[in-house]
Formats: sequence, C-alpha cells, structure tokens
Amino acid sequence: MKRRKFLQGAAAGGVAAAAATVSAPAISQGIKQLKMVTTWPKNFPGLGTGAERLAARINTMSGGSLEVKVYAGGELVPPFESFNAVRDGKAEMSHSVSYYWQGHSPAFNFFAAVPYGFNAAEHAAWMLWGDGHKLWTELCDQFNIVPFMRASTGVQMGGWFRKEMKTMDDFKGLKFRMPGLGGEVLRRLGATVVNLPGGEIFPALQAGTIDGTEWVGPWNDLAFGFYKVAKYYYWPGFHEPCTTGEVLVNKKVWQGLSKQQQEIISVAIQAEATIELAEFNYKSGDALDTLLTKHNVQLRKFPDDMLKNMGQAAVDVVAEVGNKDAFTKKVYESFVAARKKAIGWSALGEQGYMNARSLMKL
Amino acid sequence: MKRRKFLQGAAAGGVAAAAATVSAPAISQGIKQLKMVTTWPKNFPGLGTGAERLAARINTMSGGSLEVKVYAGGELVPPFESFNAVRDGKAEMSHSVSYYWQGHSPAFNFFAAVPYGFNAAEHAAWMLWGDGHKLWTELCDQFNIVPFMRASTGVQMGGWFRKEMKTMDDFKGLKFRMPGLGGEVLRRLGATVVNLPGGEIFPALQAGTIDGTEWVGPWNDLAFGFYKVAKYYYWPGFHEPCTTGEVLVNKKVWQGLSKQQQEIISVAIQAEATIELAEFNYKSGDALDTLLTKHNVQLRKFPDDMLKNMGQAAVDVVAEVGNKDAFTKKVYESFVAARKKAIGWSALGEQGYMNARSLMKL
Repeated sequence: MKRRKFLQGAAAGGVAAAAATVSAPAISQGIKQLKMVTTWPKNFPGLGTGAERLAARINTMSGGSLEVKVYAGGELVPPFESFNAVRDGKAEMSHSVSYYWQGHSPAFNFFAAVPYGFNAAEHAAWMLWGDGHKLWTELCDQFNIVPFMRASTGVQMGGWFRKEMKTMDDFKGLKFRMPGLGGEVLRRLGATVVNLPGGEIFPALQAGTIDGTEWVGPWNDLAFGFYKVAKYYYWPGFHEPCTTGEVLVNKKVWQGLSKQQQEIISVAIQAEATIELAEFNYKSGDALDTLLTKHNVQLRKFPDDMLKNMGQAAVDVVAEVGNKDAFTKKVYESFVAARKKAIGWSALGEQGYMNARSLMKL
Repeated sequence: MKRRKFLQGAAAGGVAAAAATVSAPAISQGIKQLKMVTTWPKNFPGLGTGAERLAARINTMSGGSLEVKVYAGGELVPPFESFNAVRDGKAEMSHSVSYYWQGHSPAFNFFAAVPYGFNAAEHAAWMLWGDGHKLWTELCDQFNIVPFMRASTGVQMGGWFRKEMKTMDDFKGLKFRMPGLGGEVLRRLGATVVNLPGGEIFPALQAGTIDGTEWVGPWNDLAFGFYKVAKYYYWPGFHEPCTTGEVLVNKKVWQGLSKQQQEIISVAIQAEATIELAEFNYKSGDALDTLLTKHNVQLRKFPDDMLKNMGQAAVDVVAEVGNKDAFTKKVYESFVAARKKAIGWSALGEQGYMNARSLMKL
C-alpha cells in the first residue's frame, strides 16, 4: 500500500508540464478520480477524519461519478506542498488552511484567521455574505485554483508554555511555534517564532528545539500529548480566534465538472463548516476536563495588561501586513470594516448573551 | 397559480388514510416530487429564502431525480399545521422550528432553543456529537417523521416593547408574543403570552392586541417593521439563544429514497446551518445600524438584576417542563449535562476571546 502510494506520488511528481495532467483527471469507466492532499497526519482527529468524511459524502452524493481519495500530509506530497500540488495539477484538491500560503500573498492570512479578528460565526458571515469569499476567489484565480471555505476549529487556546507568562518580558527569546499573523505578533514581542506542520511539533517540543507551541484547542492538543512536555496551558488565544480551513480545487479540474458535481462538492464542503466546528466544540469540553483532572495541566489566563499589549501588537502587525500590496490592502480594508460591524452585533448577540448567562450558576 | 395550489392542498387534505399517499411521493418520469411546507411567509428574509435555496440545491445535486418545491405558510396547509402535514403525508417535507410542536411533546423545545441554554455553536455540538439528534430522532419516530437540524438564527434579541422595562413589575399584565419555553418564563413573571406565526405579529402589535413581541434579530425585525409601533429594543435575548430550525421528512418517504438521495438531502440541510446563520449574523450588523440611525430605535439592555430574575424563572420553567414525562426527562438531563460542559469550554474559548477583544478599540 505504501509502495503503491509512493509510486503514484513519484509518477505525479515526474510530470513537469503540470497543465497536461490537470485538464483530464484520471477517468475510469466514466468515474472522475480526485486526489485530495492534506496538511494533516492520517486520520488526525477532526482535521484528518474530516477530510475522510468529506470525501465519503461527495462520493455517496455523486452516486459514484466522483471518487475523492484522501492523502495524508507526506503521502503524495509534503504537507506544505499541497497548495502547489493543486496549482500544478499533481493533486485535484487539497484540504488545508489558507494562512500556510502567506508566502504566496500576505492576503491569504485573512481567509484563515487574524489575531483579534473574527470568531468563527463572524468569519463565516464575512466570507459568505460579505466580500470575503469573492476576494479569496480573485486571489486564488492567479494560481489556477478555486477555493472553498471549510470548517473553523473555533477559538484556539493560547498555547502550551514550559514557564508561566507573567510579563511581556517573558516573550523575549521564547522559541515558539505559531503560524500566520499570530506568529508575526509574537516575533514583534521578542519571541523566536517557527512554523512546523502538525506531526513535527511534539518531537520539537520534546527535544527542546522549541519552548512552547500553540496547536488548536483542548481536543487536538490532548491528542498530540503536549501536556507531557509543557505544563502551563494559556487562554484566551488571541492569535487564531476562528481558524478556518479550506478546500482548494484545481481550476481546470473544476471547470471539467458538471454543474451537478460542482454543487455536490461545494455544498458538502459547506456542511463541513457545521459538523467539523461542532466536533471541535463538543470534544473540547471533554478534553479540557481530562487535561485538568487526569494530567494535572495548569490552566492560566493571560493577564489583561498582556492581552492589551498583545492586542496592540496584533493591530500593528495586521495593519502592516494588510498594506503590503494593493490587493492585500483591499482585503484588509474589507476585513476591518466587517470586523467593526461584527463586533457591534456580537456585543448585543453572542457576547451579550454569554455574559448574561454567566450571571447564573448553571 | 393560487387556485392550482389551493386545489393541490384540498386534494391532499381529502385523503383520510394518509399512509396511502406517503409511500409513493408523486413520481413523474422517475422524478420524485417533494412538497416542502414551511411556517414562513413566501420568501421571508433568511427563513423563506433559505427554504428556496435548500430546495434548489437538493434539486441540482440530485441531477433532477428530486424536485423539492417550497410552499409558504398557508399555501398548502396553515403554518402551524406543517408538522401534522408531514406526519400524515400531506407534504413530504417541512421547514420550520421544533418548539412550535411542544403541544405534541414538551421535549420538542430542547431541539430548538432553551432560555439560558446553548448558543448556536454549543447547540450544534450537542445535536451532532452529543445525544441531541439521537433523542430527537427517537421522539420524531413516534410521529412517522425523520428530523434534521437546519440553521440557527443566532442569539435573538430581547424584543420590542412600547414602554421601558425597569423592574420585574413591568412584566405584570404585559401582553407579549413569545413562543416556546421563553413564553413560559414570561408567563411565570406575570405576562400574558401568546404565540402567533410571523405574518400575524405586526397587525396584532399595530392593533394593540399585544403590547410587544420578540421575533428574531435586527435583520428580520427590521423587515417586519416592528419599530413603527414599538420604540424600545431590548438585549440580550434570554429566551432563544440559538433558535435552531429543522427540516422534517415523512419517514416512509425517507425510506423510499436511495442512499444517494438521502445523503444529498441530509448534507444540504447541514450546509444550511452554515450559510443561513452566516446570513443572519452578517445582515444583523447592517440592520442594527439602520434601526438605530434611520428609525430612531431606542436600544436598551435588560438590567443585570432583571436578567438574574429572568434567569431563575428560566431555570425553574426548564426544570419543570423537563420533568413532565419520562422521555422529556431524558432529553432534559442530557441537555443540562451538555450545557455544563459547553459553558466551561465557551468561557475559555468564544466568550473568553470576545471579552479579551473588547479590551481593544477596534
């Protein structure tokens, strides 16, 4: 099985003129086979399993006319090569997060998560009913890619630290894993920031190559076992309040699908935004309990003055990144305007309600 | 057009032995035609338009093998007859909210919204990954119905009042429109509570038959024009923090569908939970602005001591309702346990983040 996958990968990698492969995804008896590469370990909770669920749903809904097959990070291409793989036609689809591609354009950050930005519900509102998805589509078009908003993991935790974080000085020299704009903020605050794909974080933390890491939230963090090597677990996460995944489809492959097949794929991805976020939220409650009661994890809240300092650094970084080029500026300005309105409504709605509920002992 | 629809309705209504009609939905050239009745006015923003979008998506994804057709409340059956219509096979599907059916069982309230209960994300977590959907399916099975969780409208506003609400005495004798358990709470606090379908609320408020009403949130409330006859707009809504819609399918109709058709319908409904909630959130920001700046609406927050009193009444009502019969007790206990965990995670996640974000001026 592994050898066969290796050979498939090698064969795809050997095709230099990628365009030749993308116009005709493997067709066998009228069935379109779509390779979906991911940035996750095989069946990783929520993310890897979500990719498998999505593939199965698309396959069932298509009545067999589509056959999506999931490849874990590294199986067909290395995790962080999945964007290029879809662009170049080595894979028809990918299942990942947009901020990994900030090297291609800083604008990609805004379609995943922005420090002190939207929460999951606010992000979906901007993406689906504001200008978010339209701008993202415009950006991806330059790369021969059609993007779709997948699920948010919800608000992420602040991360795992070996020492308590009491003042801003504690960030100085800290070797920390954090991707995207949150990583830029920590760099600004004096930390040495690295990005590592999921599977490489625990070994790095264990070896002391890094002093701490954020990953997702209680459920995913428990699965990786970070509590074994870092004791303090901080909240709230300022850096990724809505980390929203994506599915990318090679544009020529997309155009070769029927209207029916396109609708099946896009609606199935949109349903993931419901079921995957719900899974993260449901299982985080249980995992949090396990971490606190079984593994003696020390929960810590960032002090308000630190949150304000991190917030100001975030505002500065997001503004700088948002002004790096004309297109990114357009995305940034749309984001800032939508965030202002979102915060206004959330204050009366979600936030107002949850704070009222906190008046009660339930 | 109206006459034709009337005749269709009359014909369906004339079938006394409903089972005879449900085993074979109208079949024409291999196409299954599915009538979806709703509790909404035709194309009502978010709810009515969402029903139309859902129908169009199912039809496209099925490649024409399914033809879902939407009927506004009253077109085929009166709005509050839609549950019975699906049960009895007058309609194959319905698009509504579960708490409207509390006359059949108090347990139905828990699958829509509970005062001081889940928000949208927490509700989806319990429904899809906890016991919620399983219990709901068990309940609906008694009625020959297969239920599906649709979208939440998000946290609803507290409602429209002709006078300011300053003390608990202001509830005494107040004639107010509020469905579900929230209505029970207000009744307990001394109000005279009525339930009215959407289309009948404005005339009742205008005629003075009621003193005030809640409906949904800024976007839908603006559409109904309540600001014209009631000036004070209260937040937060304690009564419906996640009002989650449903799609019901007649069980025999469901069993007559292929696995492919079943997957198309259930995944399409799940996608509505993403796109419909996003629409409510996005458009509420704009509508709130319009209400405040163009229509001189007076925004008011319920004082904390009133929120606590309303909260205690809610706890009492929910416990009483939740202990009315053995099945409802099972649902209630599952809800209470899941709410406890959800509140714990939200405090660190969504709520913790939004409160941290409020430290900044964004």
